[in-house]
Amino acid sequence: MTPPRGMRDFLPAEKSRRERVLAVIRDRYRAHGFDEIETPVMEDYARLHSGIGGDNEKLAYNVLKRGLEPDDIRAAAENPSALTDLGLRYDLTVPLARFYASHRGELPSVFRAIQVAPVWRAERPQKGRYRQFVQCDIDIIGDASAQAEAELIVATLDAVDALGLEGATVRINDRRALEWMLESFGFAAAERPGVLITIDKLDKIGHDGVVAELRQRGASGEAVDAFEAFTRRPMTMEYNPYGERQIRKALPADIPAAIVDHLVGIGRAVAGARLPGPSASPPEGGEIPLVFDPFLVRGMGYYTGTIFELAHPSVAYSLGGGGRYDGMIGRFLGSDVPAVGFSLGFERLVDLLDEGTDAAGSAVVLVYDRDVPVAELITHKARLIAGGSRVRLEARTKNMKALLERAASDGYSSYATLGAGADALEVKPLR
Amino acid sequence: MTPPRGMRDFLPAEKSRRERVLAVIRDRYRAHGFDEIETPVMEDYARLHSGIGGDNEKLAYNVLKRGLEPDDIRAAAENPSALTDLGLRYDLTVPLARFYASHRGELPSVFRAIQVAPVWRAERPQKGRYRQFVQCDIDIIGDASAQAEAELIVATLDAVDALGLEGATVRINDRRALEWMLESFGFAAAERPGVLITIDKLDKIGHDGVVAELRQRGASGEAVDAFEAFTRRPMTMEYNPYGERQIRKALPADIPAAIVDHLVGIGRAVAGARLPGPSASPPEGGEIPLVFDPFLVRGMGYYTGTIFELAHPSVAYSLGGGGRYDGMIGRFLGSDVPAVGFSLGFERLVDLLDEGTDAAGSAVVLVYDRDVPVAELITHKARLIAGGSRVRLEARTKNMKALLERAASDGYSSYATLGAGADALEVKPLR
Repeated sequence: MTPPRGMRDFLPAEKSRRERVLAVIRDRYRAHGFDEIETPVMEDYARLHSGIGGDNEKLAYNVLKRGLEPDDIRAAAENPSALTDLGLRYDLTVPLARFYASHRGELPSVFRAIQVAPVWRAERPQKGRYRQFVQCDIDIIGDASAQAEAELIVATLDAVDALGLEGATVRINDRRALEWMLESFGFAAAERPGVLITIDKLDKIGHDGVVAELRQRGASGEAVDAFEAFTRRPMTMEYNPYGERQIRKALPADIPAAIVDHLVGIGRAVAGARLPGPSASPPEGGEIPLVFDPFLVRGMGYYTGTIFELAHPSVAYSLGGGGRYDGMIGRFLGSDVPAVGFSLGFERLVDLLDEGTDAAGSAVVLVYDRDVPVAELITHKARLIAGGSRVRLEARTKNMKALLERAASDGYSSYATLGAGADALEVKPLR
Repeated sequence: MTPPRGMRDFLPAEKSRRERVLAVIRDRYRAHGFDEIETPVMEDYARLHSGIGGDNEKLAYNVLKRGLEPDDIRAAAENPSALTDLGLRYDLTVPLARFYASHRGELPSVFRAIQVAPVWRAERPQKGRYRQFVQCDIDIIGDASAQAEAELIVATLDAVDALGLEGATVRINDRRALEWMLESFGFAAAERPGVLITIDKLDKIGHDGVVAELRQRGASGEAVDAFEAFTRRPMTMEYNPYGERQIRKALPADIPAAIVDHLVGIGRAVAGARLPGPSASPPEGGEIPLVFDPFLVRGMGYYTGTIFELAHPSVAYSLGGGGRYDGMIGRFLGSDVPAVGFSLGFERLVDLLDEGTDAAGSAVVLVYDRDVPVAELITHKARLIAGGSRVRLEARTKNMKALLERAASDGYSSYATLGAGADALEVKPLR
């Protein structure tokens, strides 16, 4: 009698904790000028399987067509997709692109969207990986400039700060820089996607591991030599402070200026948000929470420019990420529209944060003797509620201690006892 | 490029309105001691199709099994349910029963649940009826007394009041009274479900229509005569004030006392909640917002006792309803557990409520000239946010009037303009 495999029930304490975290995130994103939208959990099968979802398309839950006849089913034996017309979304990016294509005329010319909603993937269940989980995305559609990346990064860092996780940083790269480097090393266009998959493992297997795997893959030997020579230079990977000189040094000298300018522009704008304001804390020594990583890859195939990942010193894994996907909306709309998004790893964030309880307002457990008439009991409850409290009724039991401890763990802060004929209640603190 | 048939996108204004309504309802339900839980949107196919979902089971969206081989599909031609192992929930009651059976040991002995979540039904789309819609339920599990019904009704009326829809009433009946009457009229057990379906149309087709349809159905002639004689008495249908004498008069004299006592107990307890409290408004002349309706039916087959419907003078349709379903959880758990729930018609409520805009806090549109350096722009935005405002950036356009009007309709209350090199911003009201 459990939920389906890989999916979770949320009991009151956990549900309330998740909602509190979401409320903080929504509040910060709204402050930064983003507006929440919602799309149905299902999208047309063809749209979910148009190639832009990458590997996630294979993990989609598909919905059985209604009204299938035996002949329809037999005819679909070799082509199961004929059995389905809808699927559950596996991310919030494909639905956003569809939404924007549906409603462009009703939206501001630069549209800043919040989406906080569940997605589904039929993955092998394992610790920390679920088949239904919440994604928490902000996206800016219609702005090709570095201002869009900066607004996303500043809003995300503000949300993470507001959750009490100060000290987060954003690692940045640009897919165009990466592609340009691979080409300049001599990797053929056809082998580059595979090369990226290997380079993505730099964090895990190190430079030597990556070089070995590239050779084993049968990548062009001279290109691997060039890659190895480049990554052996003393100044790759991480640079702080993040600035024009440092970014130029980390890239081949002849990299196109437009790419560097965009990366530098993001840094300047993020630094702008860190200047002292009426109540903002002043920045320390001009440092900004950005790190340039010329070999940051990000898995998804749809990225066309800037890519980023959210890191926090307390954990080795990323807490979110995103990037620019200027091509995707054009595929639905027929005309190109620039777009960039940042997705917070909500499930990971919730796991990281303290338990905490709901401190908002007074919460009273009203313990009543069983001979109190129901109408009297309900009157006392109504009075407490009218006075601003949250009230739970509990019939008196022999083990009052256990009853009150459970109430405290459920977030109740005080209690009162009620016998038959009592008039006024005395509300006492629970601990 | 639209959402799937019968499903809706929510643009920012509508999404924000829906969230505000949900926040009010959640706040009131929490004040009354209910706790929110969440279950996955999918449940095992067998559980969704065990008969307790009634007609809704036929409307379920079923999820295609992953990894089906051609032979599996051919073998399922005459038995399509072999193609599916999961389905999307069509209500929140079946998942709640499953949840309670999974977690009983972790929950208080009387468990008061809030569920606010979407459900899916493959209905013929029509005005006001959607294939994905939000249900908003409270349930009390583990209390067989009239106190449970009273807590549900008081909490629901409080939520509806808080939404600005004062003057709502709850129509009440008891399925046991209805069954007992039908039996006493002489309807055979086998024909009673059909008879109930016809009686459920009293509001629409009137007494004469119901009697005609009962005869047409071929219901026992003498039983129909008895029904007709009873409903021709002058005092059926609606009684106010709601009290023991009125309820007794509306029912056959020999109705079992336990049924009347339960109905009367609900009235007394609801009246208790209406007594003057520290800030509650005093009741008028002892009237309580309950109406006894001996021919209220409610469609679902799982009700075993009290049933109710929420009515409001401004609309002819009901705004919610529910009832007692003491048998259902026992089917999952193996031992009987009393349960009663009240479901608010969230989609109908949202449609009824005023447009309204989000008045919370200051919201500023910052209109900037295109030659303002991005870093400066982001600095000004960050300062406004740090000062407590919500801030949207807009590049200056020729049609400033249209730009500001759209911002006002999106809930922004003020604006500022920014040229290159400007230092301080002057924030002005938008209208």
